This record gives sequence, C-alpha cells and structure tokens, in this order.
Amino acid sequence: MSKSHIRLNKTTREWVIYAPSRQKRPQDFKQINLEESDSHYCPFCPENEDHLEPVILELPNPIKQGWQTRVVENKYPVLTPDTHPNRKMNGIYVTMMGYGQHEVIIESPHHNQDIATMPLKAVETVLETYHQRYLELMTAHENMMIIIFRNHGKKAGASLKHPHSQIIMTGIVPQHIRLREREAQRYYDQWARCLYCDMLYFELHTETRIITENHSFVCFVPFAAEVPFEMWIIPKEHQADFGSISSRQKADLALILKDALGRLYRKLNNPDYNYVINTAARYKAEEPQVHWYLQIRPRLTTPAGFEIGSGMNINPSIPELDAKFLRS
Amino acid sequence: MSKSHIRLNKTTREWVIYAPSRQKRPQDFKQINLEESDSHYCPFCPENEDHLEPVILELPNPIKQGWQTRVVENKYPVLTPDTHPNRKMNGIYVTMMGYGQHEVIIESPHHNQDIATMPLKAVETVLETYHQRYLELMTAHENMMIIIFRNHGKKAGASLKHPHSQIIMTGIVPQHIRLREREAQRYYDQWARCLYCDMLYFELHTETRIITENHSFVCFVPFAAEVPFEMWIIPKEHQADFGSISSRQKADLALILKDALGRLYRKLNNPDYNYVINTAARYKAEEPQVHWYLQIRPRLTTPAGFEIGSGMNINPSIPELDAKFLRS
Repeated sequence: MSKSHIRLNKTTREWVIYAPSRQKRPQDFKQINLEESDSHYCPFCPENEDHLEPVILELPNPIKQGWQTRVVENKYPVLTPDTHPNRKMNGIYVTMMGYGQHEVIIESPHHNQDIATMPLKAVETVLETYHQRYLELMTAHENMMIIIFRNHGKKAGASLKHPHSQIIMTGIVPQHIRLREREAQRYYDQWARCLYCDMLYFELHTETRIITENHSFVCFVPFAAEVPFEMWIIPKEHQADFGSISSRQKADLALILKDALGRLYRKLNNPDYNYVINTAARYKAEEPQVHWYLQIRPRLTTPAGFEIGSGMNINPSIPELDAKFLRS
Repeated sequence: MSKSHIRLNKTTREWVIYAPSRQKRPQDFKQINLEESDSHYCPFCPENEDHLEPVILELPNPIKQGWQTRVVENKYPVLTPDTHPNRKMNGIYVTMMGYGQHEVIIESPHHNQDIATMPLKAVETVLETYHQRYLELMTAHENMMIIIFRNHGKKAGASLKHPHSQIIMTGIVPQHIRLREREAQRYYDQWARCLYCDMLYFELHTETRIITENHSFVCFVPFAAEVPFEMWIIPKEHQADFGSISSRQKADLALILKDALGRLYRKLNNPDYNYVINTAARYKAEEPQVHWYLQIRPRLTTPAGFEIGSGMNINPSIPELDAKFLRS
C-alpha cells in the first residue's frame, strides 16, 4: 500500500490526511465500518506478542511482576517519520507527504481492563507513558503538534477492545488549533490574562458546572459543552504544555481522570467516548495564553447535516444539569 | 420543556445550540441513540396526517393527483421564531435566545421512496420546495443564515425513515461559515476571481475527480475530500446564493442530484449520508467571492479522538480513485 499524504482544503485552509494503508477497495465500503476486534485474536494480548510490532517503550506493572504499558508503532499508521513535511504545489492545490509518527499505547496486558476500572497505580503508569512518549516526540526536528487521544467503544471509532490510547505527532499545525490559539491570544491581548485561567476561576466561583476537583486539577462540564456530558480536566496552575506536568500533577491527574471516567461508566452505563489532550503546538509551549486540558466527549448523539453545514453543535442537554447528574 | 438557547464557546468563538425540547432525562442517555422510526407509526405518512403539525406549504404531485411535498414545523424545533436573537452577558460568557426557524420538508407521501429512487419530476418538486421556503425565510428580518440539509440513515443522524429534508434559519452566522468566507475573500483579494470558479475550472481541466456534469452543474469529488466518496455539486455559473437558482438550473440540479445519489445507492449499497447546501450568509448573497454548492458526505467512517483534537480528517480513500469508482 502506498504511503500517506496530506492535502490542503483551500476552502477552509484545513488539512486532510490521506492514509491509503487503511484503505479498503471501494466495494469493501459496502459492508464497512470498523473492523470489530476478533474475539479469538487480539494483537495486544500477551499471548500474541510474537506478532506485535517492535516495542518502543515498556513500563513495568507498579504492583506485581510483568509489564503495565507498552508502546508500539501503529500497524496502520496515518503518518510516518521516514519522509519530510515539505509542501509542494499540485496545480492550484497544495500537498505534502504524510510526515509524522503514530504510536499505540497498550495500557494493560488485560484485555478487559479499562481506565475506569483499573487500579489507580496502573492509571498513573499510563499517564507516565503518555508523558515519556510526548517528551521524546517533542525532540523530533520536524514536530509541530502532538495529539494524545483515546477512543473507547465502536461509536467512538475504536477498532480494538483491548485498552489502548494513541499518540500522533504531525509536521503541521492544523487550522483548528490555530483558531483556538488566536482566540486565546485576542483574550490575552485584551485582559493580559489567560482565557483558560479566567474560565477556571469563573467556574470555581459559579460552582454549577463543577464535577470534582483535587489539589492540581478541576473537572467540569464546560459552559458551552458541545455534546452531552462533555467534561474538561484542566490544571489549576497555568501550564501551556502537557510536557511540563510534574510528578505530583501526574498523580492528581490519574486520580481525577479515573474518577471522571468512573462516573461515566457507572452513571451512564459505560458509554462510548473519546478523550484528547489539547496542548500547545510547538513554539507555543511557553506562551502565557495557552493552557492545556484533557477533554472527554461521550458519543451519545450523532452530528448530522446541520452540524456539517453550520459547524455548530446541537446539544440536547444542559451543561448545569449534566454536571449535577455526574456530581451526585 | 423549556426553549432553546445558544451559547458562545469562548475558546473557539463557535456557537452551540441547546435544545432541551429534544432532551432526555440524563438516565435516558443510557439506552440512547436515535429513536428509530416506529415501523407501525410514521408521523409523515398520509394515514396519520390528522396528527401532523400545521402544513406551511404543500406542492402537488407533478404526475398524478395528490401532494408531492409538504412543509411543516419540526415537532422538536432546535430554534423557534417567537423570540429574538439579542445577546446578553452571562458572567464572562455570552448567550442568546434560540431564535430561528426549523422546518421539515416531507418529500413524498410514500414511506419508502427516496431521492435516488423517486421519479425525476418528484425530485424537481423537492428542489422547488427548498427554493420557495428558502426565499420565504430570507425575508425574515432577523435571518442571518439558512441551512438546507438531508440526513439519510441512522448513522447520518436520521430519526425517521420517511423521506424528508430539513431547513433551519438562524439569527447568527457561525464561525465555521465566516472561516469559509474569509478564505474565499483572501483568494478574491489576491486573484480578483472566485475561488470556487477557479477550482471548478481546474477540476474540469484535470478531469480525474469529475463524476458527471450537465448544462448547469458539475458533480465531482473535491481534491481535499474530508470523507470517502464526498461529492460536490456546484453550479457552473458563478452564483453566491442558492436563492438565485433559475428554473433551468433547478431542472438540471434535480437531474444531477438524482444521478449522484443513485450512484451511491447502486455502487455502495445505499449508504447513510448527509447532504447540505452551503450558500451565502445574509449580506453576502451578492458577493463575487461566494459560490454555493451542494455537498454530499457519505457516513462510511467514524471520526475519533484525533479528528476531535486536531480538526483534521483522516480519509482512508483517495479522491481520484473514489471518483473513478463512482464514474464507472
């Protein structure tokens, strides 16, 4: 299969990644949708490790013998490091090669464990793995942006049940990220304060959207939540870059993340969800107006034609009521 | 149930609509997902018309007796006209009431018909209905944006099988639309030409992404298609506003739309899809850099955490191959 490439959509200035290694033949789209994890064969389970991609990083189980997390290259990477991010013209359009890196973080040797249900120490190890890989990928010369995310359940785009996260490094800063940066910068230029710090202060003062907090983090439903039961976990201290997270913060993040996902698991019967760490793009990692956060988006609604055409979400629930329900 | 309201997401400057008339109790999200059309009761079928919302517009069947299309207010409108679009502060945030209008266009009395399979004259009547409602809603004083869309199938967010489209008028121009306008304006200011006219010219010259064309329209897979088998149907003549469509164009649009959806239906076994008419916001309806088009997005892939975090789509297929497959 040929390699990935990236094209610029001239009408929105957003990039689109073409990943033909994930391609099916057109007629295969008929059956389509995500390949369900074969219940008889899981590539991430220890008994199949002979066929696993080379292990990039492995962290030990914090409680007993053996490994807790393993990092491997994604078998069907959307981006690969063996090329370069240079642009070229293609008629009136712009393209670039599919430069980047795409890794899978296997979170546990146990097929049926999950962040919501695994021991706290194991969650800490997952976050430690995120952090180590993040710092390593930050050193890549052509790195511009690193996105750590987790897809839980079929409706969230997960193709394998075995608990795992993914990390993608790209050689571009997407328009979507630039847009958020610009809004934060406008706010900073007006008030000389971080928009996210001010939102956090307001939320803690208002209380109605807060779900839980600990020494380092607050978990709340954002004022303009785009989907039902959206949650943000945000560091109390101003911190632009996820890479700057301290040991204390990692322990506190493990605690609040497990708590937040546990609430979804118990109160909404283990819904499908995505989470993503929204952090600074390269060259923004020190800026006073950027503030990283972990965003959890349950997949309880289906965006339709209106959302595609307008870019606006329709949320059938009310953030304050969602927070009350999750808090109880 | 309380009325809709709209909140501004300060981090993206995009609006989010809260539509509690569509709300379930939090615990109801457990079962969730779209209410499937009850096979024994369809509110749009003629035998249940006693319970239908008041008919706003009805167009006759072009071939035989009876009606072809009916327009009614959506039973669970996301926006309503009996309020106003004024903004107010809510602490550090901005909200507005849910001003707008939300109508359903019932496309046929027949429960199992569809654009791809209905007679051409019936498709023309559907488009005539779009046009008449569009022109009428354009006269609303507070109108800023009109979005006509169609959800086909459960994965595309459709809750009823009976063939229907929807039209939503809003009192705001979403950030997403402004972004597209800005890109078109940048291009116009540089080249003094419409970006979309130039893309169309390039596509017709290159040929590899063209699926079909007729006197007034071209159907092609865009160079930076965001999803597999995305198609655009765009007027050859520069036209900013869907409302300016001529009778000849309406007939030609019916022909090419039925053809395009028929190709999906036959070659991909009737996949779920959305289509949306992307047209000028109010005050942009005469501008030389805005060009309307109908965008068809099959729902064959599932956006996941990476797409949420980056705003970039991952498309596992290649536009030129998709076009070749649909053309054949």
